[in-house]
Amino acid sequence: MAASVMPVAIVFDTFGTVVDWRSSLIAELAAFGAARGIVADWAGLVDAWRAAYHPSMQLVREGAVGWTRLDDLHRASLDRLVAEFGIAGLTEADLAHINRGWHRLRPWPDAVAGLARLKRRFIIGPLSNGNVSLLTNMAKHAGLPWDMVFGSDLFGHYKPDPETYLGVARLLDLAPGQVMMAAAHNGDLAAARGCGLMTAFFPRPGEYGPHQKRDYAAEQAWDVVAADIGDLATQLGV
Amino acid sequence: MAASVMPVAIVFDTFGTVVDWRSSLIAELAAFGAARGIVADWAGLVDAWRAAYHPSMQLVREGAVGWTRLDDLHRASLDRLVAEFGIAGLTEADLAHINRGWHRLRPWPDAVAGLARLKRRFIIGPLSNGNVSLLTNMAKHAGLPWDMVFGSDLFGHYKPDPETYLGVARLLDLAPGQVMMAAAHNGDLAAARGCGLMTAFFPRPGEYGPHQKRDYAAEQAWDVVAADIGDLATQLGV
Repeated sequence: MAASVMPVAIVFDTFGTVVDWRSSLIAELAAFGAARGIVADWAGLVDAWRAAYHPSMQLVREGAVGWTRLDDLHRASLDRLVAEFGIAGLTEADLAHINRGWHRLRPWPDAVAGLARLKRRFIIGPLSNGNVSLLTNMAKHAGLPWDMVFGSDLFGHYKPDPETYLGVARLLDLAPGQVMMAAAHNGDLAAARGCGLMTAFFPRPGEYGPHQKRDYAAEQAWDVVAADIGDLATQLGV
Repeated sequence: MAASVMPVAIVFDTFGTVVDWRSSLIAELAAFGAARGIVADWAGLVDAWRAAYHPSMQLVREGAVGWTRLDDLHRASLDRLVAEFGIAGLTEADLAHINRGWHRLRPWPDAVAGLARLKRRFIIGPLSNGNVSLLTNMAKHAGLPWDMVFGSDLFGHYKPDPETYLGVARLLDLAPGQVMMAAAHNGDLAAARGCGLMTAFFPRPGEYGPHQKRDYAAEQAWDVVAADIGDLATQLGV
């Protein structure tokens, strides 16, 4: 690896980096619709739902609305989109179940084994805009072997606010330079580097399916550029 | 078990309940002293150190001092006791190393296997007065398979303040009655029950060595009374 020192902890972006949100949600909703006899553009709904993600967090970052957990941002976007897509017949229990689909996302094929290798030497955790309950349930469902779960609700801030990256260092009693941010998104790593963290990139070219527009390759000389989480472990010697 | 419903999450008191702080620290300090040629009443130091634990947190609870992490309370007590015990020749690095002994405590023999069984069905974590870094390092060292680490610094409060017990429920998006507090200390469980949590007790009669004075048995009809963590798993059907 390019870096001359090793991190003590590695924190991972989660949606898209560790878990495949798009395929997971489309598969779950298609099965749900088939079982319930509800015909809808489920893939379109999922893409629109994710498209609402950054704008909904931006309202929190700007202070237009107070701190709101991602589960609740997801739910507000879902309610709006279900109406826009003209999907009828969903009960409150259905909507709550669909919203919890973000707790049941499937890992990319390399994730669980790669994280298990990294866990042998490093403290590992998600540093995600998801809330602690979402990330904890996701880990149970997907078998992600985190040491600690850094949800955005621990900080009352969403990435790329510096309170998130620096909050990990504070809670682990480490210097920022002892923490490595790992992500499939160059923007996340740029913010982490701005706070003094080490950085590791690997691409997830299938994250957005046919709609992927960016993050096919490293855009800066990150400390590590890998093929996936398994390759990150190999490059870090575990 | 006596309870008619199952918890979703089980959180564990840590010092004394999951790890054997007294034997661990005495063994480590005795080895340290022997290696360095420093003769001291290490067992007496450890007992006095632990005796300073509750009074030091009480100053925080009462607001006499602002929020202070347990690592820093431990260090202040250690500095005072090293002088009182007349232990000379310790460098700053020595004192920092000794203070981090709380990060290296050994689990009781039943702890790791019992927690691994419970983790199959329940969300498990420590709910401890230790800070996140202490508890995360302890888990790495001892092999404790937590799903999430609830350190007191997440809440800015020490047990038995209700913010700690209720904070777990809030972060996991659960009702207090869906969370079970497990401890070898009746007082901890009484506070948890007062917040609406379920409760599980098992004794650790060797926690204080020859100085144990209480907590040999359940003092209330806790939801589960077990022999140890393995027996708790058995009673919960895992």
